[in-house]
Amino acid sequence: MNPKIGVIMGSSSDWETMKHACDILEELEVPYEKQVVSAHRTPDLMFEYAESARSRGIQVIIAGAGGAAHLPGMVAAKTTLPVIGVPVQSRALNGLDSLLSIVQMPGGVPVATVAIGKAGATNAGLLAAQILGAFDVELAAKLDARREATKAQVLESTGDLT
Amino acid sequence: MNPKIGVIMGSSSDWETMKHACDILEELEVPYEKQVVSAHRTPDLMFEYAESARSRGIQVIIAGAGGAAHLPGMVAAKTTLPVIGVPVQSRALNGLDSLLSIVQMPGGVPVATVAIGKAGATNAGLLAAQILGAFDVELAAKLDARREATKAQVLESTGDLT
Amino acid sequence: MNPKIGVIMGSSSDWETMKHACDILEELEVPYEKQVVSAHRTPDLMFEYAESARSRGIQVIIAGAGGAAHLPGMVAAKTTLPVIGVPVQSRALNGLDSLLSIVQMPGGVPVATVAIGKAGATNAGLLAAQILGAFDVELAAKLDARREATKAQVLESTGDLT
Amino acid sequence: MNPKIGVIMGSSSDWETMKHACDILEELEVPYEKQVVSAHRTPDLMFEYAESARSRGIQVIIAGAGGAAHLPGMVAAKTTLPVIGVPVQSRALNGLDSLLSIVQMPGGVPVATVAIGKAGATNAGLLAAQILGAFDVELAAKLDARREATKAQVLESTGDLT
Amino acid sequence: MNPKIGVIMGSSSDWETMKHACDILEELEVPYEKQVVSAHRTPDLMFEYAESARSRGIQVIIAGAGGAAHLPGMVAAKTTLPVIGVPVQSRALNGLDSLLSIVQMPGGVPVATVAIGKAGATNAGLLAAQILGAFDVELAAKLDARREATKAQVLESTGDLT
Amino acid sequence: MNPKIGVIMGSSSDWETMKHACDILEELEVPYEKQVVSAHRTPDLMFEYAESARSRGIQVIIAGAGGAAHLPGMVAAKTTLPVIGVPVQSRALNGLDSLLSIVQMPGGVPVATVAIGKAGATNAGLLAAQILGAFDVELAAKLDARREATKAQVLESTGDLT
Amino acid sequence: MNPKIGVIMGSSSDWETMKHACDILEELEVPYEKQVVSAHRTPDLMFEYAESARSRGIQVIIAGAGGAAHLPGMVAAKTTLPVIGVPVQSRALNGLDSLLSIVQMPGGVPVATVAIGKAGATNAGLLAAQILGAFDVELAAKLDARREATKAQVLESTGDLT
Amino acid sequence: MNPKIGVIMGSSSDWETMKHACDILEELEVPYEKQVVSAHRTPDLMFEYAESARSRGIQVIIAGAGGAAHLPGMVAAKTTLPVIGVPVQSRALNGLDSLLSIVQMPGGVPVATVAIGKAGATNAGLLAAQILGAFDVELAAKLDARREATKAQVLESTGDLT
Repeated sequence: MNPKIGVIMGSSSDWETMKHACDILEELEVPYEKQVVSAHRTPDLMFEYAESARSRGIQVIIAGAGGAAHLPGMVAAKTTLPVIGVPVQSRALNGLDSLLSIVQMPGGVPVATVAIGKAGATNAGLLAAQILGAFDVELAAKLDARREATKAQVLESTGDLT
Repeated sequence: MNPKIGVIMGSSSDWETMKHACDILEELEVPYEKQVVSAHRTPDLMFEYAESARSRGIQVIIAGAGGAAHLPGMVAAKTTLPVIGVPVQSRALNGLDSLLSIVQMPGGVPVATVAIGKAGATNAGLLAAQILGAFDVELAAKLDARREATKAQVLESTGDLT
Repeated sequence: MNPKIGVIMGSSSDWETMKHACDILEELEVPYEKQVVSAHRTPDLMFEYAESARSRGIQVIIAGAGGAAHLPGMVAAKTTLPVIGVPVQSRALNGLDSLLSIVQMPGGVPVATVAIGKAGATNAGLLAAQILGAFDVELAAKLDARREATKAQVLESTGDLT
Repeated sequence: MNPKIGVIMGSSSDWETMKHACDILEELEVPYEKQVVSAHRTPDLMFEYAESARSRGIQVIIAGAGGAAHLPGMVAAKTTLPVIGVPVQSRALNGLDSLLSIVQMPGGVPVATVAIGKAGATNAGLLAAQILGAFDVELAAKLDARREATKAQVLESTGDLT
Repeated sequence: MNPKIGVIMGSSSDWETMKHACDILEELEVPYEKQVVSAHRTPDLMFEYAESARSRGIQVIIAGAGGAAHLPGMVAAKTTLPVIGVPVQSRALNGLDSLLSIVQMPGGVPVATVAIGKAGATNAGLLAAQILGAFDVELAAKLDARREATKAQVLESTGDLT
Repeated sequence: MNPKIGVIMGSSSDWETMKHACDILEELEVPYEKQVVSAHRTPDLMFEYAESARSRGIQVIIAGAGGAAHLPGMVAAKTTLPVIGVPVQSRALNGLDSLLSIVQMPGGVPVATVAIGKAGATNAGLLAAQILGAFDVELAAKLDARREATKAQVLESTGDLT
Repeated sequence: MNPKIGVIMGSSSDWETMKHACDILEELEVPYEKQVVSAHRTPDLMFEYAESARSRGIQVIIAGAGGAAHLPGMVAAKTTLPVIGVPVQSRALNGLDSLLSIVQMPGGVPVATVAIGKAGATNAGLLAAQILGAFDVELAAKLDARREATKAQVLESTGDLT
Repeated sequence: MNPKIGVIMGSSSDWETMKHACDILEELEVPYEKQVVSAHRTPDLMFEYAESARSRGIQVIIAGAGGAAHLPGMVAAKTTLPVIGVPVQSRALNGLDSLLSIVQMPGGVPVATVAIGKAGATNAGLLAAQILGAFDVELAAKLDARREATKAQVLESTGDLT
């Protein structure tokens, strides 16, 4: 099945974070592709990726990067598909630099930014699915079921407060 | 035509920011509704709004709030529709509190966060349209045309550097 | 004896922090209850908890959460009982996000915020007791005695400066 | 009627902020007193104020200060009454210094911290009332009625979004 | 005379800042060109500009941008000419976002970052001249003379302390 | 010999930091005393310490504290001896809270603030000695000799760059 | 009378802040000198100033600077007199850059740092006087009298809370 | 061959960071020298180093320092050669203090600032080479080849996403 979600990241060292986005897509059976695409080291590849994404059937792009994180914003500049940006936790500034570099986009080119690190990557996968789910009743039902399961876990976890 | 986008905000004082989201939706002829819904002052209304949104035909929710900005995250907790959060610039901390309160969601409940203030509101409108445009060729074409127009403005603006 | 203090937290992983609030309540023999209540994963439970607290005899609610910490503020929105918010230390931003999400509440819905992490949880327990102690001479005496004991420890500790 | 709430502030220049706490207490008919008490310029007065508060019938102290804001924490060190700290917005750092100086208290001496500036002062007044209201059915009813009125204002304010 | 320095900026609104770089180059008679080049609105132009700069005789590029400021870093990714980045002061976060987005580049692609705002733009002009001056005795002499003149101004300015 | 410098700290856990101040005083043979004095747990002791310091022959007070660090400022409020404040590195906010709580004193009551942590404690010892040395030729000579020794260490250390 | 305090600042534009230090010295009749000395524009003058200060009878140096504020620390590197650093409020970052550049000195070379801006300059004057006052009973008495006067002002100012 | 690049650092403990600059210069066969030069402990050496650098054939200076990092800015004040500043990651504030102390230079004296820590040191080496490469076709070719190699590594690294 053709991938609907493209998951890209600036470096293979971001995989430890970004795999959590892919885990969600696997769990929800949303077809996706994944690739290292670096804004600074492979700028032309980045542009080609963004330009061709829609015609290849991609509907949402998830892009993770850290530090002066330009990948999500530059991909967003080259496509009008929705782009989700994941700020990867950086060494010195704990991802605050990543977050601001991704979220503070100028008017005209949005990036849908999620939280720093693992929680953000998980939520990037879920947000991509929710976007598809706005037009896909079956996927929406899966997402609702996942919420119910999460709720049940919370209810049980009071037992762990010892 | 039934609204596809719900634009909500925590206070009527957020309208000065949030109207920029609505301006984009008007420009792109995307049907929307707008309403003041406060997480802290009308919590039940907020839950009803979020719970009923999908069945009323809403496909994307845009929620703006400032300070301890709980509206986007709590709406996101009550629906699996994509929710876009706009951090409204706050008085003391310039919207850094709004940004962190919106973007740092735990794994499981994503909010698609955009920039602080006016640019963020504009981009919330565009992001909502891009989400619809992932499934709507005509709207995607409008978005591409808008990008072209923006590009032309930039090219001309070098003449202003005097 | 019916609980007078409700201690809730967004996740069982917050227990390591929040148990310090409970330790204080045990020490002071203030009856309390504890429960995992997640703003984002169990929003309806949260509302029910807050709405029913007063009628169940709860006089103060202590709520701990991290990141985009919405639990204290949303509980505060659904009750006029005093709500104490404990910012749990978050992974990337060390609890600065938790702190701002809890303390920067809009006018109308207060949250009594304490310090980030363990010291904050301890103080949440003490603050809850001090609130009861404003109307309970015996408990006030216990709190004063605790202060005296703490003072004695400090006086002795100069001997450790070697 | 004897004051139940003591409202103090480090300087008469803090009155512009702190009057919002007093406005709430007036509105709710909670008897209070107000005074300038400076941690750094009148330290002995501060200690006397804190030490004598309970015996004078005060049940909650509200203390506002800016910058290296030591007033709330030092008052809290001299009484086991609940102390609410209001971070006044400072000139250079916008109240972030005030907030951290007030909220980051060590375990043992809690300060119930509210938001920076006017919203925080308003909430300090409400929080003090809510503390009394935990033991006073009539005052609790007034607080609930105030919430209802606030809710009605929000519902009407959608009409202002033009 | 062919331009040796290329001064680009993300928007004509950055000119108020970036003109200070051009003023220095005029003062030192260093030939330069100036142009609006937007990373997000004219990404292809940006790449063409960067790719062709060296062959057109440009030796240093000065790039100014604000917010999620991607222009300097992306230009740097497309040329091995030295690129100087000027963080333009942004509205909400005062240029801290601009600074971190420009300076926190990953290993492999440097951007020579200067201060936020006007001082930074002035220094970008001087730094570009100093780079040329490392290979141009005459320009180095001009820079030294400028320093002497500045020194004289300081010595005189003590007379203004009244 | 009577102590000229009083070294106090809020908790015996601050000793790991504050011992570096004492090490300097020992090295320079400046007589000092050390004591745990807590602003929040022993407020009366703190006031007595500050009030009696001058009459006991103390000429400079060094006070270290972390978090909402009120010790240096409150001691400074109770004496006109010079008070040096050492921000101890805190757990969640790395001492930024300690620093702001100590340095941002209002006009009227100065605290001579040094760096966060070990370097600050070392410098507190040196600063106290430099204050005495402004009136003591012999001590000034010792301080100059220490600087020379430090310089020699730096010159040698280039050999370590391998 | 020979000056005992040297007040220097990086630019005549810092005078608006630094005059508050001089006002205090005038009020307390402490002889002082004032001069513009720029770390970056007159580095040799700065070194000469620092090296010659002690032999000219200066006992304390007050140095004010903003942004990358190197003046206090570099003067401190060239003398073992006590150096007080005043962080002047900067344009973009409100003096946070000035503060960190001044206070975070490495072990070996202390700078006695005061608050950002006017309050800091006032306190620099007072701290210099307190240092002299540690060895001058008459000046100490003046400082105590000033504290008493300040206290009286606070006591009266409660009348202004209307 | 005479060194063209001078690499200096404030302490031998900075070598762990700064060696990454030297590694790049070795890799690109750019002749360099390295030395510990401390702004605060060897201020005269620092001035001599900066003043004599151009006449010794140095064309670019790389200076690394942490905390109140004055070395790059003070060297820049004493030469009109381009100076690259590397903010070394500091203990308490993770290098944010180093960064602001280096980058926020006043108009007139630029420092070309790179990222905090290892990535910044690597980029300092590359930036120095790029500056030489603006006047040296052979070195420019080496830099372009390095970029190509980096690109190839990225393309291959997608295989590691498992």
